[in-house]
Amino acid sequence: MPADALLFSNSRPPGAQVPFAHAAEPLRAHLGGRTLWFAAWAGDDLDTYSGWVGDALRDVLGDLDVRGLHREADPAATIRDADPDRETVFVGGGNTFRLRRRTGDNGVLAALRDRGDLRYAGASAGSNLACPTIMTTNDMPIVDPGGFDAVGRIPVQINPHYLDPDPHSTHRGETREERIAEFHQENAVAVVGLREGAWLLHHQETLTLDGYTARLFRRGHEPVELAAGTDLSWLLATPTS
Amino acid sequence: MPADALLFSNSRPPGAQVPFAHAAEPLRAHLGGRTLWFAAWAGDDLDTYSGWVGDALRDVLGDLDVRGLHREADPAATIRDADPDRETVFVGGGNTFRLRRRTGDNGVLAALRDRGDLRYAGASAGSNLACPTIMTTNDMPIVDPGGFDAVGRIPVQINPHYLDPDPHSTHRGETREERIAEFHQENAVAVVGLREGAWLLHHQETLTLDGYTARLFRRGHEPVELAAGTDLSWLLATPTS
Repeated sequence: MPADALLFSNSRPPGAQVPFAHAAEPLRAHLGGRTLWFAAWAGDDLDTYSGWVGDALRDVLGDLDVRGLHREADPAATIRDADPDRETVFVGGGNTFRLRRRTGDNGVLAALRDRGDLRYAGASAGSNLACPTIMTTNDMPIVDPGGFDAVGRIPVQINPHYLDPDPHSTHRGETREERIAEFHQENAVAVVGLREGAWLLHHQETLTLDGYTARLFRRGHEPVELAAGTDLSWLLATPTS
Repeated sequence: MPADALLFSNSRPPGAQVPFAHAAEPLRAHLGGRTLWFAAWAGDDLDTYSGWVGDALRDVLGDLDVRGLHREADPAATIRDADPDRETVFVGGGNTFRLRRRTGDNGVLAALRDRGDLRYAGASAGSNLACPTIMTTNDMPIVDPGGFDAVGRIPVQINPHYLDPDPHSTHRGETREERIAEFHQENAVAVVGLREGAWLLHHQETLTLDGYTARLFRRGHEPVELAAGTDLSWLLATPTS
């Protein structure tokens, strides 16, 4: 039984100013006083980003030990040796391709795959990394990721920052829904389009949507709207390829 | 001296209904009565897509011999053996990762690299494929492309369907400009954000923007607005890595 995974679309719903304020309760339960290793590699300036997230989480949760994993001499060893009762990992957002590349190169990706007993939290790119692959990211492929396979903590794909089509747009680029339909031309795994503010919680044999609404895409099915609080546990048994 | 490349953001500007109607003149000059091999691999249904593009081009240009390259027994050999005075290639849009994957697998990518003497036209994903890499695509990475390096007919990157930030949006995902800034955190090559309706024409030692406006992004420089008709030949001498 893998440990809990708490996977955010992003740090705040539309209109909200304070990051993670809407998610204080599940975050507090998830972290449970553990030291949080923050993986900042999706970002550009790793120290600044880690400091910002640490401050944001302490503003909402009070005292919390947040450490930048990139400051460790051997970040992969830190994950490999982590005590699941005292330590947990949070993978931050930014560019998913850069995150996949750097964690592939430094061994953190492999360590995270091996440590399914360690609680995992992620936001945006960090949530994509918890999926079977990074293929449902919205990010620009600014570096070769060295492979599209990811940590696979859940057997469904997340599309973070899910965006509804704008009926007034004259833009001819694909809508998000069209992009996910393209994904299903090539892949069978289900995709949860997490609108901003939404998250998935994988706890034991349950998978729950909360925080905001989402849209579920399955190959060969019409998309379905999901309300906050929807039980998605049945998705844990759907095929991933 | 490579042959001309005519690289469209997409098939029509905002509000226009008839594909390529705004670009009849440069298309007619570029094709010059040649047989057009249409590369549909970015799309899903290759026959339907090739037929649609053939009809669209004939509606605007009159009689034109358009053939689906995917119908050839050995598409790479067709490119390798093409007569540059009588044949030309047009790479269509769709999903850039799928296009890169399929043309890498079937040898068309390598053949296009070797046939710089063959005129090249592209739209959207097909324009991305003419760049040094596919890294400035907007598409979802629905398949592993098998590498990010592309045909390299021009030494600059195109971002097709370039979209200006929406000042009224509450969406927290990156704007296009922010995504291109991320690209420049990792890469030095210049990026031309081609708004819909715009194209680049590479002719001998000149590179010209036309059809619509664009926005130029260079590492370490503020973005610059470009009017239709701007001479960008100086970009041909800028570093690509």
